[in-house]
Amino acid sequence: MDASAPSAVELAAAVTEQLRDYLGERRRDAAYIGTDYAVLTEAVEEFVLRGGKRLRPAFAYWGWRAVAGTEPGPEVLRLFSALELLHACALVHDDVIDASATRRGLPTVHRIFTERHRANNWHGSSEQFGLSAAILLGDLALVWADDVVATAEIDADAKRRVQQVWAAIRTEVLGGQYLDIVNESSGSETVASALTVNTYKTASYTVSRPLQLGAAAAADCPEILESFHEVGTSLGIAFQLRDDVLGVFGDPAVTGKPSGDDLRSGKRTVLLAEALELAERNDPSAATLLRTSIGTDLSDAEVKDVCRAIEAIGALAAVEARIDTLTRRALEILNAAPIDAQAKAGLTELARLAANRSA
Amino acid sequence: MDASAPSAVELAAAVTEQLRDYLGERRRDAAYIGTDYAVLTEAVEEFVLRGGKRLRPAFAYWGWRAVAGTEPGPEVLRLFSALELLHACALVHDDVIDASATRRGLPTVHRIFTERHRANNWHGSSEQFGLSAAILLGDLALVWADDVVATAEIDADAKRRVQQVWAAIRTEVLGGQYLDIVNESSGSETVASALTVNTYKTASYTVSRPLQLGAAAAADCPEILESFHEVGTSLGIAFQLRDDVLGVFGDPAVTGKPSGDDLRSGKRTVLLAEALELAERNDPSAATLLRTSIGTDLSDAEVKDVCRAIEAIGALAAVEARIDTLTRRALEILNAAPIDAQAKAGLTELARLAANRSA
Repeated sequence: MDASAPSAVELAAAVTEQLRDYLGERRRDAAYIGTDYAVLTEAVEEFVLRGGKRLRPAFAYWGWRAVAGTEPGPEVLRLFSALELLHACALVHDDVIDASATRRGLPTVHRIFTERHRANNWHGSSEQFGLSAAILLGDLALVWADDVVATAEIDADAKRRVQQVWAAIRTEVLGGQYLDIVNESSGSETVASALTVNTYKTASYTVSRPLQLGAAAAADCPEILESFHEVGTSLGIAFQLRDDVLGVFGDPAVTGKPSGDDLRSGKRTVLLAEALELAERNDPSAATLLRTSIGTDLSDAEVKDVCRAIEAIGALAAVEARIDTLTRRALEILNAAPIDAQAKAGLTELARLAANRSA
Repeated sequence: MDASAPSAVELAAAVTEQLRDYLGERRRDAAYIGTDYAVLTEAVEEFVLRGGKRLRPAFAYWGWRAVAGTEPGPEVLRLFSALELLHACALVHDDVIDASATRRGLPTVHRIFTERHRANNWHGSSEQFGLSAAILLGDLALVWADDVVATAEIDADAKRRVQQVWAAIRTEVLGGQYLDIVNESSGSETVASALTVNTYKTASYTVSRPLQLGAAAAADCPEILESFHEVGTSLGIAFQLRDDVLGVFGDPAVTGKPSGDDLRSGKRTVLLAEALELAERNDPSAATLLRTSIGTDLSDAEVKDVCRAIEAIGALAAVEARIDTLTRRALEILNAAPIDAQAKAGLTELARLAANRSA
């Protein structure tokens, strides 16, 4: 890895190497619990290693660089990789909650274990077994994430600061996930409530807290944590809005998720709230189409109709404008912050990547 | 609390007080995430405070007393109370896995949230909402448990020792839970495989590791941790065997669980494995009755028939004999260990309570 300014790919590879080492150790250490359990510990490893952009550790890395100016050692990269284990728990449990069939272009964990149960001709419900294994696998990823942070080789003051951020990120992401299912169930249609979910489920979780984790590991710098909170909130919401756009308009071959899934599941996104508010005002028949379509088992042709309606009503353009404004604001705050110049450059590149990605 | 030798009730009350303080703090700290989330954080609090024997913190308490000889301060009791938060996660997720309707005589968490969804007339499946909320609630309890351990006010060496035990207990209990669902699905009938589940899901989790956690918090004492491993394995298995007996023969009014649930769900207990092995050898028609009944939707009258068969074949007596032998062995090792005399007395009382309880 080039110490002066690693590319996103180099950084992801360095984080993956830490994860590979750590997960291998934990799997071997747990072997005494029995060969059947090895199936679960190997499945954690496979899930974590099989893909992912390592975006959260990358933000932590640049948060560290912003404050320390120097390259973090492998023990610090190990600490940052805990964010990926936490993420594994969030994804696996989220896939159970959303009853999703695929993740990263492959079957979700609960589907894999459902299939294993079926292939073994075991007793009882294959679906219940898959669900149960996925709950336990997510728990194990969460437990191991916490172990990484607990055993991080950093000094006692740094650890105390890191643990504060770590406590916040986990309580917040669970809050975002819970608010998300409440919004989806209650059919909340406002842009405001969708933005609250984005703040905790994505912005805090993906950008603000990872940035703060990196900075807190490097030094005692409350003002910079405050700047990172502002940068992260704007950029993180932009990131989620991009996700919402990709969930409706993205190319399934690139995103790895079937097109139309977000529409069929009735996900309460800002894009959808924006579309409903605009339709309500300017095009009642489009509003009716959206209300009767979202959250139902749409055919591919119907998905295309709904996409066209969302675009025609101006919601896609409105969300793209939001993404642009938020990214711009994040970069302005970043530019004004008293942090390392190379970290500014690195974070600017990462911000553009997060807001304009296609997967 | 009497410093010289608190009763089980006094100890449980002191632990509950720590939990009440901690959970209140965390709930207030999380209020900024939104009023909807408060429903979940309050539900964690209610679940943890509404009952439970506080058995795991009690073992940790006596593990500490065994080595330190002195009463632990409130900050150490706070650390031990983390075991109850971990337990909340294990119970709530286990109830989802087993699709249980009641816990401690009240509806399970997933049922409570299913009912809330229904009462609100929300969209989508009430069951899926209940399941999702229970997954997130269990995750939150686990996260807060880890936060208690991470922020424990004990010296750095003690913390390092505690974290080793804490890492082991969590990886082991998830192992026990996973092995349990695999055994139940594969229809494993051996006493040996049921005992492996008991070792990790109960003995390590309920007795050995809590004892070690207490001792590790107090001092660096590897030999005593080894004795506690032996004591805990015997006593913990006895505890689980008592649970198995109560699950079939217990009084629902005392256990809070409907009678026959374990038989209907097809739980692979040592009691059942023992019954099958004995029936296979001595009474083929009883073996057929057991095989065709266990794991099916039995009427109350059929539950009684199966109970009678398990008793008549000698399985109940065999399991009672095992409980007796294991408890005796645990007390012998305990008696020979170089630990504080009052702690020996306290642990002996606790051991008898665990092995002979009626709920």
